[in-house]
Amino acid sequence: MDNATITVEFLPSGKTVKAVKGSALLDIAESAGIHIGIPCGGKGRCGKCKVVFEEGAPDSTPTEEDTLTEADIAQGYRLGCQTHVGADAVVYVPDGVQGAKILTIGTARVIPFKPAITKRFVKIPEPTVHDQRSDLTRVLTAFELSERVACDLAAAQKLSKEMREDGYGLTGVFSGGVPIAFEGGDTTSDCYGVAFDIGTTTIAAYLLDLNTGKQQSVAASVNPQNRVGDDVISRINHTMQESGGLAELQSLVIAEMNRLVETLCHGAEISADSVYEAAVAGNTCMMHLFMGINPIHLAQAPYVPAVSAAMYISARDVGLKISEFGRIHALPCIAGYVGADTVAVILATDMYEDDRLTLAVDIGTNGEIALGSQKRMLACSTAAGPAFEGAHIKHGMRAASGAIDAVWFDECELKYTTIGGAEPVGICGSGLLDAISCLINAGIIESSGRIVDSEEIPEEYSHLRSKLVLGERGNEFILAEKEYTSISEPVVITQRDVREIQLAKGAIAAGIQTLMDNMGVTADDLDRVVLAGAFGNYVRKESAINVGMLPNVPISKLHSVGNAAGEGAKLALISTDARGDADCIADRIEYVELTTDPGFQDRFAEALMFGED
Amino acid sequence: MDNATITVEFLPSGKTVKAVKGSALLDIAESAGIHIGIPCGGKGRCGKCKVVFEEGAPDSTPTEEDTLTEADIAQGYRLGCQTHVGADAVVYVPDGVQGAKILTIGTARVIPFKPAITKRFVKIPEPTVHDQRSDLTRVLTAFELSERVACDLAAAQKLSKEMREDGYGLTGVFSGGVPIAFEGGDTTSDCYGVAFDIGTTTIAAYLLDLNTGKQQSVAASVNPQNRVGDDVISRINHTMQESGGLAELQSLVIAEMNRLVETLCHGAEISADSVYEAAVAGNTCMMHLFMGINPIHLAQAPYVPAVSAAMYISARDVGLKISEFGRIHALPCIAGYVGADTVAVILATDMYEDDRLTLAVDIGTNGEIALGSQKRMLACSTAAGPAFEGAHIKHGMRAASGAIDAVWFDECELKYTTIGGAEPVGICGSGLLDAISCLINAGIIESSGRIVDSEEIPEEYSHLRSKLVLGERGNEFILAEKEYTSISEPVVITQRDVREIQLAKGAIAAGIQTLMDNMGVTADDLDRVVLAGAFGNYVRKESAINVGMLPNVPISKLHSVGNAAGEGAKLALISTDARGDADCIADRIEYVELTTDPGFQDRFAEALMFGED
Repeated sequence: MDNATITVEFLPSGKTVKAVKGSALLDIAESAGIHIGIPCGGKGRCGKCKVVFEEGAPDSTPTEEDTLTEADIAQGYRLGCQTHVGADAVVYVPDGVQGAKILTIGTARVIPFKPAITKRFVKIPEPTVHDQRSDLTRVLTAFELSERVACDLAAAQKLSKEMREDGYGLTGVFSGGVPIAFEGGDTTSDCYGVAFDIGTTTIAAYLLDLNTGKQQSVAASVNPQNRVGDDVISRINHTMQESGGLAELQSLVIAEMNRLVETLCHGAEISADSVYEAAVAGNTCMMHLFMGINPIHLAQAPYVPAVSAAMYISARDVGLKISEFGRIHALPCIAGYVGADTVAVILATDMYEDDRLTLAVDIGTNGEIALGSQKRMLACSTAAGPAFEGAHIKHGMRAASGAIDAVWFDECELKYTTIGGAEPVGICGSGLLDAISCLINAGIIESSGRIVDSEEIPEEYSHLRSKLVLGERGNEFILAEKEYTSISEPVVITQRDVREIQLAKGAIAAGIQTLMDNMGVTADDLDRVVLAGAFGNYVRKESAINVGMLPNVPISKLHSVGNAAGEGAKLALISTDARGDADCIADRIEYVELTTDPGFQDRFAEALMFGED
Repeated sequence: MDNATITVEFLPSGKTVKAVKGSALLDIAESAGIHIGIPCGGKGRCGKCKVVFEEGAPDSTPTEEDTLTEADIAQGYRLGCQTHVGADAVVYVPDGVQGAKILTIGTARVIPFKPAITKRFVKIPEPTVHDQRSDLTRVLTAFELSERVACDLAAAQKLSKEMREDGYGLTGVFSGGVPIAFEGGDTTSDCYGVAFDIGTTTIAAYLLDLNTGKQQSVAASVNPQNRVGDDVISRINHTMQESGGLAELQSLVIAEMNRLVETLCHGAEISADSVYEAAVAGNTCMMHLFMGINPIHLAQAPYVPAVSAAMYISARDVGLKISEFGRIHALPCIAGYVGADTVAVILATDMYEDDRLTLAVDIGTNGEIALGSQKRMLACSTAAGPAFEGAHIKHGMRAASGAIDAVWFDECELKYTTIGGAEPVGICGSGLLDAISCLINAGIIESSGRIVDSEEIPEEYSHLRSKLVLGERGNEFILAEKEYTSISEPVVITQRDVREIQLAKGAIAAGIQTLMDNMGVTADDLDRVVLAGAFGNYVRKESAINVGMLPNVPISKLHSVGNAAGEGAKLALISTDARGDADCIADRIEYVELTTDPGFQDRFAEALMFGED
């Protein structure tokens, strides 16, 4: 009975999945590709993950009875983070609950739990006329530390008051054993950290309990620097062209990080004063901007970062509103376009300690690629461009409500789904790759990338001939007819769209091939191919291989690991071992500069094709 | 001929001293007890030490010809810092040139020259497409440092620009080997530090060249915190009674320190941006206030400091306007009333490494006393009160123009001098002690402290009977008759004045006796008695012994060492060895709390007497 299978249909998308009876709704939804946001970290407190069981509502839990009204419960409302599904069900997941499809749940490796931040409570012997040691000496001695240990001035300034606030019971907050704050009374149970992954487009943030390593809440938002441009180059240009541009971009990202900290803390019902450290990953440019370090030399050959090593900084030095005594650990970068996010991905996937050969690909505006094992590691960055994020694509869009995100043949019938089940508005990266893969398979796109003329479509797919129309600039394939879309035109894939995707996937494929050639291996030698990041999570693996973006490996070797960069940042937050590993990764990895690699251009030209001609 | 002696008379005081022909005027003046201020450090640039030779003007030097006008030179104007005296001379030293009689020249021991701050210049290899290391990694490697070394964020933020500013020639500024700043080009010759001694009343500051250890300029000023009260307790009360009082007192002292830095740098013609470190000594309360640490527990038993260990802080964290990357080393304190200034005195006198037994006494509002040798060290603090600074004394005043600063018998005739040779305005500490000593010797003050009645004055001094008058509260001795003073009354010493001095000198003597008893030694065991601070420098040693303030040792064992606290701060500035020694001193020294010492009250009662009854 425990292994009995149930069927759960999610509305409004209509996606239906099988699940083991009694599974958590969160897991079932995830398996359907539906991400239910849980701002409070799954504690059942915030009520923001409220879903409606239209059929098969399970019994309400005591937590749900606390958080929801009786009327809600009677109507089938349940908390997404609390409910387990015991029978076939139909569940409506409101759009707001799904939120933006930004990845905040990844895969994490096991690493010793050794946070840099620790707390200890001690009773301090009261000063008397026979024991006139200074407060600080008294306290350091009680914590079994040398009086010579460098105590932060800010901590020293508050020590005397805190020490006397709760009858000489005092909690010390330590960073790598050095006291950074003192708090009256026993506050050891309140000890948190935040991990950030600062992307050019989105910022993901995770609140972790530094006593347990457990995630408390998750939040993500759009990087507000996008107001000066979508890509890294436009951000760098802004710092060069505008006086105060660097400070402006820094304060934009810091302000957003502060909002995320607020959201995280509100969700978990804790005070930001109990957050003592932030671990930050991001691409090299984002790391520079966040630290207020000018990134201009990233924009011109030889593309060197100002800073690549890990940095330890005071939260107050950059204005991050965690504890006033808080620290920031900025993960190391590898090169101008292989950043701390790639280091974090490598950290999270453990590939640097594994004897298996792993290829890790993180596709965003730039495709960062790492190849290696414990023996040797290579990395490069390819300018994939923003096509997968919808830019320069006629109906391209981000992975948001109404985006066609999956396309497949059901027999010979072309089917698609949209995010949120809405009427199509456009097509996002995963849908685009699916569609092109299907059209290749149907002979509608040739290996050269040309969209055939209507009459060239094979007989088997002759019913699709009506979908091929001549647009302004060549043939277009209609994916969704005008009457089914919520825009006043059909959603199409144009010849130019195919060319954009060819360039993007070609850059990635050529980058991968260059690393494999540099290491002297072929696709057959790969033990694992790991896809990181949002796109890597949502793309259909078969399509990615079929269009030739990824090497032709068995699907079983291909793993989507979600926001591995965020996972890596979390590891750095909860483990100084991981920080040491990150330093080693950044030191050890060999960066391959594609612009000067002798074979890259040839590989790129070859990789533009869809399969053998 | 070289050893010929000349006579130099100083006006307006009329003090006349003998000197070796050709001596520097500065030295001759110093031997006459006249301190000529040299804001530019004796470079002959600022012109502020201008004196007038009324007779015997030496030839002008080229420097003088640059700085002074021809007319000035013709009139006998010379620069105090430049001129050497080759013949008998009469020199007028204007009041402004003498400035406040604040000690800024002390005695210094020899200690290895090892400043914490060092500079190094390197040529950085230019980045190329074949060497894409980050700027920071490139620079750290060029400086033969590990990439893991913690680089200050502020330094990292400016690195890229500085590195490219002068063709990849870069100067690194290091604190204990850790980079704190980078400067384009070779700036190694500009490397300075400032030593501060923050007293309750005055602040002394010294600019040192950290390449050579040489003093560049000296400045001193009144601690502006005196607007809320003259003593430590009134400062502490202010922090308790006024909201924002602590911040106010901190910003007062920091603002004054900033003015002193400006003066020092202006005098030496350097930029404050080239001052990378400050070493700060001061009494415990002043150290707290300067660091923004609340001193309230110093005001109530058991009088514990919040912080006693040495602190390393960022100049910008307290707003000290040296280099924006600058550091501060705050010397350690010993106890609530034995501060970093005492540690600095011990450091400067070397008594902690000497096998001779040294007694060091620093008399201000509190008398800090240290006794010991390399074997063992004791320290205590006595509440001497402000009598020696002129407070609670009828005609008491600070050591400023018009103060009677020396009193002696010429045959049986009582003589005095005043500071600046002006008509008497009052009497300062050294004059008071001299006068009382003389009156004891003349039988006019009894060992009990009672001023005798006119008829009790011994025959030998019967001509002084007219000086004894009955004041409002008992007998008074007229030191300067009304017609010779510039106040409309005579300058007198009252019975109450004598009582105040008894209490003050008794406290110091009892403190000394308590330390000697604790160590099991007597006055005969003392190898050296060292008097630190302004009062210790100006007091006549014979008088200090005669009134019983100091133990009865041969005068040859008694040494005035000037502002030894400032000297100690300078040592800490130019030698990390000295810092280590200071930490050891603070750790090793045994603090004796007089308020609970069983024998202190008896010793105090005994020490109130002037000699044996």
